Order: sequence, then C-alpha cells, then structure tokens
Amino acid sequence: MTTLPSHPRFVSLEGGEGAGKTTVLTALRSALAAEGGEVVCTREPGGTPLAERIRALLLDDGSHEPPAAETELLLMFAARAQHVRATILPALERGAWVISDRFTDSSYAYQGGGRGLDAGFIAELERRTVGLQPGLTLLLDLGVGEGRARARDRDLARAGDGPDRIEREQDDFFQRVRAAFLARAAGDPQRIRVLDATRPAAAVAAEAVAQLRAWRAAR
Amino acid sequence: MTTLPSHPRFVSLEGGEGAGKTTVLTALRSALAAEGGEVVCTREPGGTPLAERIRALLLDDGSHEPPAAETELLLMFAARAQHVRATILPALERGAWVISDRFTDSSYAYQGGGRGLDAGFIAELERRTVGLQPGLTLLLDLGVGEGRARARDRDLARAGDGPDRIEREQDDFFQRVRAAFLARAAGDPQRIRVLDATRPAAAVAAEAVAQLRAWRAAR
Ligand SMILES: Nc1ncnc2c1ncn2[C@@H]1O[C@H](COP(=O)(O)OP(=O)(O)O)[C@@H](O)[C@H]1O
Ligand SMILES: Nc1ncnc2c1ncn2[C@@H]1O[C@H](COP(=O)(O)OP(=O)(O)O)[C@@H](O)[C@H]1O
Ligand SMILES: [Mg+2]
Ligand SMILES: [Mg+2]
Repeated sequence: MTTLPSHPRFVSLEGGEGAGKTTVLTALRSALAAEGGEVVCTREPGGTPLAERIRALLLDDGSHEPPAAETELLLMFAARAQHVRATILPALERGAWVISDRFTDSSYAYQGGGRGLDAGFIAELERRTVGLQPGLTLLLDLGVGEGRARARDRDLARAGDGPDRIEREQDDFFQRVRAAFLARAAGDPQRIRVLDATRPAAAVAAEAVAQLRAWRAAR
Repeated sequence: MTTLPSHPRFVSLEGGEGAGKTTVLTALRSALAAEGGEVVCTREPGGTPLAERIRALLLDDGSHEPPAAETELLLMFAARAQHVRATILPALERGAWVISDRFTDSSYAYQGGGRGLDAGFIAELERRTVGLQPGLTLLLDLGVGEGRARARDRDLARAGDGPDRIEREQDDFFQRVRAAFLARAAGDPQRIRVLDATRPAAAVAAEAVAQLRAWRAAR
C-alpha cells in the first residue's frame, strides 16, 4: 500500500474505457462549481501542453512504431510528473478543486495488470516522481464488453476518432486491467470507492456526487 | 556500482558537448568497417523513430513548456528503453557492432550531476528498463569552456541549429556534468576509459581506435 501524501481537494476518476468517467466528471464539476469555488478538470495522460504531446506519442494511431511496455510506462510517468508539477499542484495551492480523468491507479491497472510490469517498480516511480495521491478516487466498474460497446456507440455518434492504440488491445488485456483496478480498490478502500457503473448514467452521477459530499463532510 | 550485463560489441561515447564524440564515432566506424563486419552507429536520446520523437520533446527549442527535472529523466529513459529493444539488442543479436553517441552514463551526468536527481533512482531505472551496459565506454574529457567554444564554431560553420534546450544551461551545470562523468569513470575504470580530448582530433581518434583494439584483443 502506498503511503503517499494525499490532498483533500484532489479527486480522480478511474475505470475502463466507456465506464462513464467523462460523464461523471461533468456531474462533479457542476456540483462543485455550484458552490462557487474554482474547479480544474484535467485528464491523463495529458493535462499540460507537454504532457499532451507525450499523450500523442502514447496513443498514436498505430502507423508509428509501438512503444515497448517499459517505454509506455516511462512515458506515462513522464507525462504525470509534468502534470503534477505544472497543473495539479499549482491549482491545489491556489485553493481550487482538481478532478482528473485517470491518474496513477491507471498505470497500476494498464501497465501493471494489463502489460504485466512489476507493481513494486510502479510504486517506486510513483514515490519518486509523483509524490501525491488523490484524497478520493471513484472507480467506475463495468464489464469489459459493456464498456467497449458504450465507447463504440459514443465514437460512432460523434464521428469521433475510433479506438486508440491501447483501446485496440484484446479483451483479456482489459479483463486484467479491470481486475487490477478492483485489487487496488480492495487494498485502499478508504480512498478508492467502487461505483457500479452498469446503472443508468444519472444514477451513477448522483452516487458520485453523494460520495464526494459525504467524503468532504467527513473531513 | 552497477553490475548489469555488458555486451562485448557494444561501445558508447560519452562527454560534454563539443568534446569530440561524433568525430571519434566516425573514426571507430571506419576502423571497424575496414574489418568487414556490420557496424551500427546510433545516438541518444534517439536511435529509433519513436525515440527520436521523444528527443524532439526533450531538446525543444524553448518555445514550448520546459520539462521538470523528473519529466526529463523519465523521457530520457523512455527513449533509452525503446532504443535498447528496437535497435541495440537486435543489432547485437545479429552479430553487429553497436557504437552509441551517448548512453546511460549521460543520464547519471546530466540528470544526476547536472539536475541533482538521485543516482540511486537512476540506477533503479537503468536496472528495470535498460538492463544492459556497453562493454567499453570512451569518455572524452574536456574543459567546459573549450567544449562550448568548439560546439559554437561547429554550429556556425554548418549554419546549424545552435544550442538546444539543455545546451543553453549555465557553465556551473556543465561543471557538475563533467565531474559526474569523471566520478562514473573512477568508479568503473574497467569499462570507462577517459581520453584527454584537449589534444588534436587525429590524436584523440587514434587513441580511441587503439583502446577499442586493445580491449577487444584482451577478451
Ligand atoms: N451509466 C451509463 N449508462 C449508459 N451509458 C453511459 C453511462 N455512463 C456513460 N454512458 C455513455 O457511455 C459512453 C461512454 O461514457 P464516457 O463518460 O465517455 O466513458 P469514459 O470516459 O469512461 O470512457 C458515452 O456515450 C456516455 O454517454
Ligand atoms: N580533438 C579536437 N580538437 C579540436 N577540435 C575538435 C576535436 N575533436 C572534434 N573537434 C571539432 O570540435 C567540434 C565538436 O566536435 P564533435 O565531434 O561534434 O563533438 P560532440 O559530438 O562531442 O559534440 C567539431 O567542429 C569538431 O570538428
Ligand atoms: Mg472519457
Ligand atoms: Mg555530437
């Protein structure tokens, strides 16, 4: 278990593709913004101009050289190291809320569970280059097939980009990702709350807002 | 001291900007190519298409967001992890010589000595994501002012790009880089040979070729 410092106004959303992270993020933003404070919504990989350039290398459309697993892990942490220093910490220091669509738990799930890289090394990267964890993480849990179907429908409806390099992995990869997310949550139930994302979007969003309010009230 | 496996046909050239690495590399290539085998000359950061894209982020002309020290370190190792897997190991496995213009010692010197990042963490990154070291490293040692003057003259003569983001650091940064290179060499004199790079280019190149031959003959 990591014992990194956490920040009370730093919230992350985790879960597989199509689980509803972006949908929930919009609901949390509205709920917090209604109270008047500044809310910074950000995402990973990305969240600064440099980190977004690293994202483009990571999620490339496949016409370029695919990164080795270790390269992927280091690029993820390079982007995160920058994101923390250039976006997240400055926002927290000026009193804003920060909601991030994915954070370090995604590296444990995708590069650890999915790619099979050692969790001890991921923890070392986290300790040495991130040094901070969210106060609250909402894990949207959904079956792999259902998430992929939702994402596909969404991308079709928007005439969007279609799946990126990581989204084109096979189902067994995403089964390992889901299992790793649930193992993270089981190991740190205080921080990571699992939401059943099979319910209608409005119900999931309402529970997410309620979880955020309860957690804040308890502090 | 790292105890990573080394490869007898893997040679790296190290030293500050303008010390003569590229000049020596050309001489080593000619000497080895005259014997008929395949010689792969490569460089860091870079050496694969993806790693060259990471290099562009690292050495950016300064109009973009500068990376934090940790981001710089992780990008260097992301590029290196890819370089080893996609270029260096395949070449060694088919029997080629590999000569790299910079390798992991540069991270100890620049991100460790120059930026002040912890050498123990750099060693962990090396062990986890590189896993290989050169059999022979030639360190071209030269005063900081002299190296910068040579590089400036070279860039003027070629109407080249001028200094990149790292080359625009102050002299005290490069003094720390030089000291860290010399400390690496003192700690591993079997692998790292220090060449006095103040001598004329032909003399330095001749000594480099002689060192390579002596080292190979001793195996
Ligand atoms: N609980 C839900 N039930 C059904 N559809 C949902 C639900 N949550 C989100 N969606 C829809 O599924 C798609 C994926 O949701 P999105 O928030 O983009 O997921 P993510 O950001 O986790 O990939 C979108 O079209 C969204 O409108
Ligand atoms: N021993 C030397 N003495 C004088 N000039 C040199 C010597 N070695 C290289 N040079 C010149 O100095 C410049 C920098 O050399 P280069 O090989 O490009 O260095 P590096 O690759 O280490 O930056 C080039 O113009 C090169 O011709
Ligand atoms: Mg999303
Ligand atoms: Mg050079």
